[in-house]
Amino acid sequence: MAKIKAGVLGATGNVGQRFIEMLSEHPWFELTSLAASDRSAGKKYGEAASWRLESKIPEEVSDMTVVPVDPKKVDADIVFSALPTDLAKTVEPEFAKAGFAVASNASALRMVKDIPLVIPEVNPEHLGLIDVQQDNRKWDGYVVTNPNCTTIMMTVTLKPLMKFGIEKIYLASMQAISGAGYDGVASMAILDNVIPYIDKEEEKVETETKKLLGEFNGSEIVDAPFAVSASCNRVMVMDGHTEAVWVEMADNPSTEDIKQAFLEFDPGLSDLPTEPAPVIEVKEEKDRPQPRMDRNLGGGMTVSVGRIRPGIRYICMGHNTIRGAAGASVLNAELLKKMGKL
Amino acid sequence: MAKIKAGVLGATGNVGQRFIEMLSEHPWFELTSLAASDRSAGKKYGEAASWRLESKIPEEVSDMTVVPVDPKKVDADIVFSALPTDLAKTVEPEFAKAGFAVASNASALRMVKDIPLVIPEVNPEHLGLIDVQQDNRKWDGYVVTNPNCTTIMMTVTLKPLMKFGIEKIYLASMQAISGAGYDGVASMAILDNVIPYIDKEEEKVETETKKLLGEFNGSEIVDAPFAVSASCNRVMVMDGHTEAVWVEMADNPSTEDIKQAFLEFDPGLSDLPTEPAPVIEVKEEKDRPQPRMDRNLGGGMTVSVGRIRPGIRYICMGHNTIRGAAGASVLNAELLKKMGKL
Amino acid sequence: MAKIKAGVLGATGNVGQRFIEMLSEHPWFELTSLAASDRSAGKKYGEAASWRLESKIPEEVSDMTVVPVDPKKVDADIVFSALPTDLAKTVEPEFAKAGFAVASNASALRMVKDIPLVIPEVNPEHLGLIDVQQDNRKWDGYVVTNPNCTTIMMTVTLKPLMKFGIEKIYLASMQAISGAGYDGVASMAILDNVIPYIDKEEEKVETETKKLLGEFNGSEIVDAPFAVSASCNRVMVMDGHTEAVWVEMADNPSTEDIKQAFLEFDPGLSDLPTEPAPVIEVKEEKDRPQPRMDRNLGGGMTVSVGRIRPGIRYICMGHNTIRGAAGASVLNAELLKKMGKL
Amino acid sequence: MAKIKAGVLGATGNVGQRFIEMLSEHPWFELTSLAASDRSAGKKYGEAASWRLESKIPEEVSDMTVVPVDPKKVDADIVFSALPTDLAKTVEPEFAKAGFAVASNASALRMVKDIPLVIPEVNPEHLGLIDVQQDNRKWDGYVVTNPNCTTIMMTVTLKPLMKFGIEKIYLASMQAISGAGYDGVASMAILDNVIPYIDKEEEKVETETKKLLGEFNGSEIVDAPFAVSASCNRVMVMDGHTEAVWVEMADNPSTEDIKQAFLEFDPGLSDLPTEPAPVIEVKEEKDRPQPRMDRNLGGGMTVSVGRIRPGIRYICMGHNTIRGAAGASVLNAELLKKMGKL
Repeated sequence: MAKIKAGVLGATGNVGQRFIEMLSEHPWFELTSLAASDRSAGKKYGEAASWRLESKIPEEVSDMTVVPVDPKKVDADIVFSALPTDLAKTVEPEFAKAGFAVASNASALRMVKDIPLVIPEVNPEHLGLIDVQQDNRKWDGYVVTNPNCTTIMMTVTLKPLMKFGIEKIYLASMQAISGAGYDGVASMAILDNVIPYIDKEEEKVETETKKLLGEFNGSEIVDAPFAVSASCNRVMVMDGHTEAVWVEMADNPSTEDIKQAFLEFDPGLSDLPTEPAPVIEVKEEKDRPQPRMDRNLGGGMTVSVGRIRPGIRYICMGHNTIRGAAGASVLNAELLKKMGKL
Repeated sequence: MAKIKAGVLGATGNVGQRFIEMLSEHPWFELTSLAASDRSAGKKYGEAASWRLESKIPEEVSDMTVVPVDPKKVDADIVFSALPTDLAKTVEPEFAKAGFAVASNASALRMVKDIPLVIPEVNPEHLGLIDVQQDNRKWDGYVVTNPNCTTIMMTVTLKPLMKFGIEKIYLASMQAISGAGYDGVASMAILDNVIPYIDKEEEKVETETKKLLGEFNGSEIVDAPFAVSASCNRVMVMDGHTEAVWVEMADNPSTEDIKQAFLEFDPGLSDLPTEPAPVIEVKEEKDRPQPRMDRNLGGGMTVSVGRIRPGIRYICMGHNTIRGAAGASVLNAELLKKMGKL
Repeated sequence: MAKIKAGVLGATGNVGQRFIEMLSEHPWFELTSLAASDRSAGKKYGEAASWRLESKIPEEVSDMTVVPVDPKKVDADIVFSALPTDLAKTVEPEFAKAGFAVASNASALRMVKDIPLVIPEVNPEHLGLIDVQQDNRKWDGYVVTNPNCTTIMMTVTLKPLMKFGIEKIYLASMQAISGAGYDGVASMAILDNVIPYIDKEEEKVETETKKLLGEFNGSEIVDAPFAVSASCNRVMVMDGHTEAVWVEMADNPSTEDIKQAFLEFDPGLSDLPTEPAPVIEVKEEKDRPQPRMDRNLGGGMTVSVGRIRPGIRYICMGHNTIRGAAGASVLNAELLKKMGKL
Repeated sequence: MAKIKAGVLGATGNVGQRFIEMLSEHPWFELTSLAASDRSAGKKYGEAASWRLESKIPEEVSDMTVVPVDPKKVDADIVFSALPTDLAKTVEPEFAKAGFAVASNASALRMVKDIPLVIPEVNPEHLGLIDVQQDNRKWDGYVVTNPNCTTIMMTVTLKPLMKFGIEKIYLASMQAISGAGYDGVASMAILDNVIPYIDKEEEKVETETKKLLGEFNGSEIVDAPFAVSASCNRVMVMDGHTEAVWVEMADNPSTEDIKQAFLEFDPGLSDLPTEPAPVIEVKEEKDRPQPRMDRNLGGGMTVSVGRIRPGIRYICMGHNTIRGAAGASVLNAELLKKMGKL
């Protein structure tokens, strides 16, 4: 089987590098185009990017020539977008119009009515919006988005709890510095400190969660009816968002019910190359999950949970630039392929 | 006026050192006795203790001879206890029986029915329990305790919100490493990490808050009727516990109501030497309070709040070994003096 | 006595803020002008600057209006310069030409032949260059510089060792992140890491040390004859540069000789308000000095030494933005005042 | 080929866990015995040990029953020792006497005259001391040791420079916290700090380096004639010792000569499973090597160098618990097997 040609938009940044790491040896996709800002376009990728990951930059990638972020210059069937919000807002539709499938990690279009916001294990049926989108807009391609990193960890764990009748959710996050990009958090800001504020993060968590857990009625998404209240904090951790979650549920499940729901959660996607097993790992130790110890489980795609207590309260944690960003888009793309949309 | 003679029990540890720092130049108290374990007793304090604070060890303290933790060996009117829980449980009553006032930071006796658990700005009237205690036990002295560090920060901010009819409280804490004592948290445990568990901390917060905000009916404390649900985490911060709090209230106050309540909060204790002004500092910046920037406000006794949002949600933060430990006991002792109990 | 009018050039940055902190209650100087880039000029200082120090921004400073970095707009007798190098190179001479005394922390002019590079305790006689400078350039004012932060700590400790015949110096530094400015070191760069490179730092240490310890022959400085070899590293410390130094000396002094030389070092400047006592503090503990514990000694102006071992090897440490930057310029200004140059 | 039976002494600690990680899937060795203190003996390993590594504990290891550190209870051909020094001093000879090959990471016997101290790439010929040792002591087995972690990184890089006539070495280390064991460095000690002292470390580096680079004359080791002067520091890094090294050499090689010597270094041991390729990696970037980015090169066995400057000065860095501890012993064992000593 010929591989699907894949491009990366915003290829030189933090998430762009994760895309390359995940796609360079992917069984279904083949990296054919790396697009970045005009400053980088025309250079070899190895010169244009300051490679920040521990893994070495793949040699063949290093030699690729960066192209501009322009549908006419990009050679691909699908593009993965790590573009900044402003740019994503105008550029992603251009690519979709030009016939590309766009799997976007940007926040720009997530809440747009006819654009699906998807986590494969949570709401694959929302991909039905693609038809609505193409109808509405007369596009040959389409845009599919994945949620914000903080939203993803929590929502994966909420999915198996939906059956208990979720009524209200409280979330306090302790988020890693990599979530803000390489230069996003100054060391003088975070050393020996907590920053109890992340720009627009709480709004994203609150709106995205309700869309993700909402119902697709054939033409649009009806938001889930419960309230979400988030308080987001930055802590001195490299990778891995840790989240303290309270879920109030109509059925008053016991902690054992919750644990069983997590353990039994199987979205049936084990045929996707990036899908981890299990999707949710239940930690039995009293002081886990911890970001440094558990963030790389399942290649960074597993969401770990622990400390399930009456309330219901628990802790969930996952790798914010893999499960929470690049890996989220890649998994969406794999699902699109499986569903014959690629 | 002659100063009141003060002793410190458990004088060599983390909190013991803070007691010494706060008492060595105190206008009302005079350090007359430093008591510690048999390993230290008989030595000069300067040799017995590894001084860990940035401030220099007071010279006259360095030369004092450490005595055993024994009412017969301690020369003082009041003793400040930084003893470990096990020891506190048996030793503090011995001191009270022998006629000492005991201002304790230990958790051992906090929840005992006839022992007051007090924050001067929150529930000074609970000191009425001293008479009950002395009646019950036929003690000449008495024991007064202060709450756990995490409880204190939150409860100081809850006091001015009581008028809105508190119904339920959620708390996620991000606690400093100094709360666990000098050797309490290994660097390998916490570097690039969050530990989402602190032994017995959540139970303490939940029970202590309800006692503190309860009513003294002349013979006992009737717990406050609302539920408290806590999720406690350790982060890589030296001093200063940061707490994300949700308070559900019957009156549905606006964020502006809450802010005004904080700004107007004045417990009328400005004649106590350690009382900060203001008690609660409202930070207007969108990303404050932060532990490294705000923990030393009011000599470490101010509780900072910020990010008041609908929910009602807000952040509070205070210095855990000053406001949350040694300073809490010292402030209690100052209140006792003001009320003629010393 | 009327206070001397003082301005700060580059008032909004890291070092600019330290200047303000040190000058706002200075007994000899009065802050009369705060100059910064065009982006800030015209605004209230409190709005133009993001105040990053733990101490609160002085209220009267907060209300001052920022002026442009222009000799015509600055009202002062002396200006303290925290300008970036490029700008300092052209702007500082303009101020000197216009009659201002300029006490500069910038590196731009440090190695210029007729511009004194001074640490008051090391080479006050180099201020004789001011006359040469004014002669050469027909300036009414003058420029005096202080060295790089890393140079200062080491050179203060070398001064009392000069009598043993210094022949060669090796220096490995472990430098604080504040040395690079607030946004200078990304948290993703330094968390769980050491960066063994600081741009131009080693060259500065090597050339500046030789000028500082050189001889002023009435018309120019003759560099000290020994070699200096530096290896500079960035570590995860907020403030305080720690330096491992080896000094090879002709006289082969013992470790006891070295310790005595440090203890007896008295430059006779105790009448300067910012001069610490002692200038060099010898730590007896086997594991000191340490930046977190000792950087604030003497208000941040003391240089601590310890671990004097055969070789001769020792550790020195000092606060890089106080003793190593703002405080260095202020101390130079105090010396200028004492010598009648202001 | 049957695998060689391998035991681990001190199996529950930090280095013991690294031994297990490296041996559990080793092509030549088979883990047959895990020995630890009486507190652990008799328990399943999974219960006795707090597994601290990111990799999961191998399942078959988790179920092994821990035995006492006693030659009669250990079933193995070779034992890897991660024992504390005191214990190693008496126990390792007992195992050697009882016929075991002992590959020890403990410091107890390293400097004993008839016990080889070996890095395979540096001084494999020193294994000739095994015969001397067995003659002297009438042992059926023998003890082979590897150096201290700090010594190893530097000495691997000194080996290819021996040809230039090394005369003097200066070393300033910035060492990771994992070198002190899990509870070795309190977080309150090292956060925002440098500790410029590590107990006995400087002495170890100075004596071990001279033994390693000394000559085996058939009956004993004649120390290398040059002096080594070390200054050892602890910094806030999880794994990876960074070392600033100066090497004075008779031949005055250029920086290019040094680089070539590193690049050409090939000890011819590529048939050993744990031997990395290359042994020394020369980093071209101006700010490398860095511990977080480079410590896992070659599975943690590569020593990285960079910043080669006149002096000759350079930086070397390697993983202290792999290349510097467990991996060092395993590589020695592989060399012993290759030489027919197992």
